[in-house]
Amino acid sequence: MNEFGIINHYFKQLCQQHTLLKLGIGDDAAVIEVPVDNHLAISTDALVSGVHFLPDWDAFDIAYKAMAVNISDMAAMGAIPKWVSIALCLPKPDTAWLERFYLGLKTLLERFNVSLIGGDLTKGPLTISVTIQGLVPKNQFLTRHGALPGDSVYVTGFLGAAGFAVNNLVDNRLAAEDFEQVVDKLKHPEPRVEHGQALLNLASAAIDISDGLAQDLNHICTASGVAARLDKSALPIDALVCAYLKEDAFDFALGSGDDYELCFTVSEDNCLVLEKKLSSLGFNYHKIGEIEEGEGIRIIDEEGNSRSIMPKGYQHF
Amino acid sequence: MNEFGIINHYFKQLCQQHTLLKLGIGDDAAVIEVPVDNHLAISTDALVSGVHFLPDWDAFDIAYKAMAVNISDMAAMGAIPKWVSIALCLPKPDTAWLERFYLGLKTLLERFNVSLIGGDLTKGPLTISVTIQGLVPKNQFLTRHGALPGDSVYVTGFLGAAGFAVNNLVDNRLAAEDFEQVVDKLKHPEPRVEHGQALLNLASAAIDISDGLAQDLNHICTASGVAARLDKSALPIDALVCAYLKEDAFDFALGSGDDYELCFTVSEDNCLVLEKKLSSLGFNYHKIGEIEEGEGIRIIDEEGNSRSIMPKGYQHF
Repeated sequence: MNEFGIINHYFKQLCQQHTLLKLGIGDDAAVIEVPVDNHLAISTDALVSGVHFLPDWDAFDIAYKAMAVNISDMAAMGAIPKWVSIALCLPKPDTAWLERFYLGLKTLLERFNVSLIGGDLTKGPLTISVTIQGLVPKNQFLTRHGALPGDSVYVTGFLGAAGFAVNNLVDNRLAAEDFEQVVDKLKHPEPRVEHGQALLNLASAAIDISDGLAQDLNHICTASGVAARLDKSALPIDALVCAYLKEDAFDFALGSGDDYELCFTVSEDNCLVLEKKLSSLGFNYHKIGEIEEGEGIRIIDEEGNSRSIMPKGYQHF
Repeated sequence: MNEFGIINHYFKQLCQQHTLLKLGIGDDAAVIEVPVDNHLAISTDALVSGVHFLPDWDAFDIAYKAMAVNISDMAAMGAIPKWVSIALCLPKPDTAWLERFYLGLKTLLERFNVSLIGGDLTKGPLTISVTIQGLVPKNQFLTRHGALPGDSVYVTGFLGAAGFAVNNLVDNRLAAEDFEQVVDKLKHPEPRVEHGQALLNLASAAIDISDGLAQDLNHICTASGVAARLDKSALPIDALVCAYLKEDAFDFALGSGDDYELCFTVSEDNCLVLEKKLSSLGFNYHKIGEIEEGEGIRIIDEEGNSRSIMPKGYQHF
C-alpha cells in the first residue's frame, strides 16, 4: 500500500463530519470554524520510538498513548478536545502494524469524540507528532500562572505507576501480574478531560503531570511566581509503588513521569465548591499541599519536618 | 543546555504578541481567538532527515524549508498564515546547530508575520513536524474539488529546478554555479501566499505543487471529478532544466517535486479579471491547459498530438 492508499484506507475514516469542520482530510489544509464564544487551545506532543515507547509495543498502544497524552493537554487547559493532526513517520508500510495503530487511534478518538483532520505520512524512523485543538469558553482557559499564596494544591488519581513500569523495563523486579497492572497505566493513561471541565472558573492554575509531580508543580510555581508546600502523608501514591518501594515510594512518586493526572490549585473561597463538585461527579482527587510565597517546593513530613526539594523529572538532553 | 533551556533561549522569542494570541509558548497549550468572519485553516507537514533534506544541510536551510512548505499549504488555501507549532526531534542539543535552526525559523516567521506558539522538543532522529494555522475569510477558502470542465489551468513560477537539484545530488552532472542556482530553489522555496490571496473568489480550485505538477494537478482532477489537458508548449520550465535536459525537460518538470508553486483552475468568466489582477500585482503566472470531462491528464504537443500520462511524482513507500 502506498502513501495515499494508507491515508485513504486507514485515516480518512477517522475524520468525522461535524458542523464546525468545514473541510477535512484530503486537501492542502483542513478548515474549521471556531464558535464566537470560544477560544481555540492548541498543543503539540511527539512520541519517539525508544524514548516514549519501545519499538516492540503493540501499535494499538502507541497510537493510544499518542492520543491520550495530547488529549491530556486539552484537559489541563479545561478545553474540550475536538481535532487532531498526526505527522506519522514510519520505517515501512506494515499493514498489520497500521491496522493496530488505526484501532488504537479509533478507540480514543471515538471515546472523546475527536476528529482526525489531517497530518502527514512520511518514510523514516518511527515518530508520531500530534497536534490537538480544543474549544474552551472565551477567557476561561486554565493556565499555569494563576496560583496565589494560600491556594490549595490538588492532584487527581494516584501517582507513580507509569514511571514504575518504565523502571521495571530496566530492572525487572516486579511480579508478572503486578507489571501488567502498572504497564497498563504507562500504555493507557487516562486523560482527565471531565476533571478539567469541572475546574473551569474554580481552579487558579492547572497542569497535567507528564514529567513528574515535582517538576510539573514547579512549572506552576515558576509561572505564578510562588512556592508550594507538599504534605508528605497526603500524596496519593499507587498501591503497588507503595508495596514495592515502601519508604522510597514518596520520592519516587514525586519524580515519576507519565502519570497524566492533573495537578491544580484552588483559592480558599473555591475549595469547598470544587470539592463538592468533584465528589458529586464521582471524581477522585486529593488535596496535597498549599501554595506559599517564595520559590521552589518543600515537603512537610509526618513529624512536621520541612525539607526543600530540587524538582526532578524527565528531561530530554 | 537542557530541554527547557533550549525552549527558553531559542523558541520563546519567536512567539510574537498579537491580540488574537491569548496564550503563547509556556503552558500546556497555546490559546488563540479566531475572528468571527474567519475560518481557520490547519495543515501539518513533516520533514525527515535523509528524505526531505540531507543531515549535513545548514540547519538554517532545514528550518527555512520546514516553514516554507507549511506556509505554502496556507497559500494553496488562500489563507493568511498566522501560527505554527513545531515538534522538533533532535539527536543531541548542539547549540551551533540550534542557533542556525533558530535563524532559519526567524527569517521566514518574521517575513510572513507568523508566530511560533508551541511545540515539543524530544531526543531522537532528526525530524521536524510543523503544524501551521491560518485565517481565511469564511467560506472563501480554496479547495481541490471545485474545478469544472472548461476552466483554465494555471501555474505560478517555473517548474523543475528543485527536483533537478535533488537529482544532481545523485548524478552530479551540473556545473557548480548551476547547481548553486537550483539547490537554492530546493532549500528556499517561495511560498506563494500573496498569489493565494489574489485567487480568493476567482479560482475554482488550487493546490501547491509539492509532489510534481502531474500528481498534484491530478489531485485536483480526482477531487473535482474531472480531467485536465496540458499544452506542452505552455509549461513554464526552469531555464537550467531546459538547458540541461533539452527534450526530456518537459517530462522531468511534470514529475518533479519540491517546486511549491501554485497550480489553480479558473472559470472562463474569471480568467480575464484574474489575469489582470495577477499582472497588476507583478505576479508571474502561466496558463498551461484546460479542465475537461473525464479523468486523468493528457498532453497536447506542438504538433497537436495527444498522449495520456500516468501522474508520476514523489511517493513515500
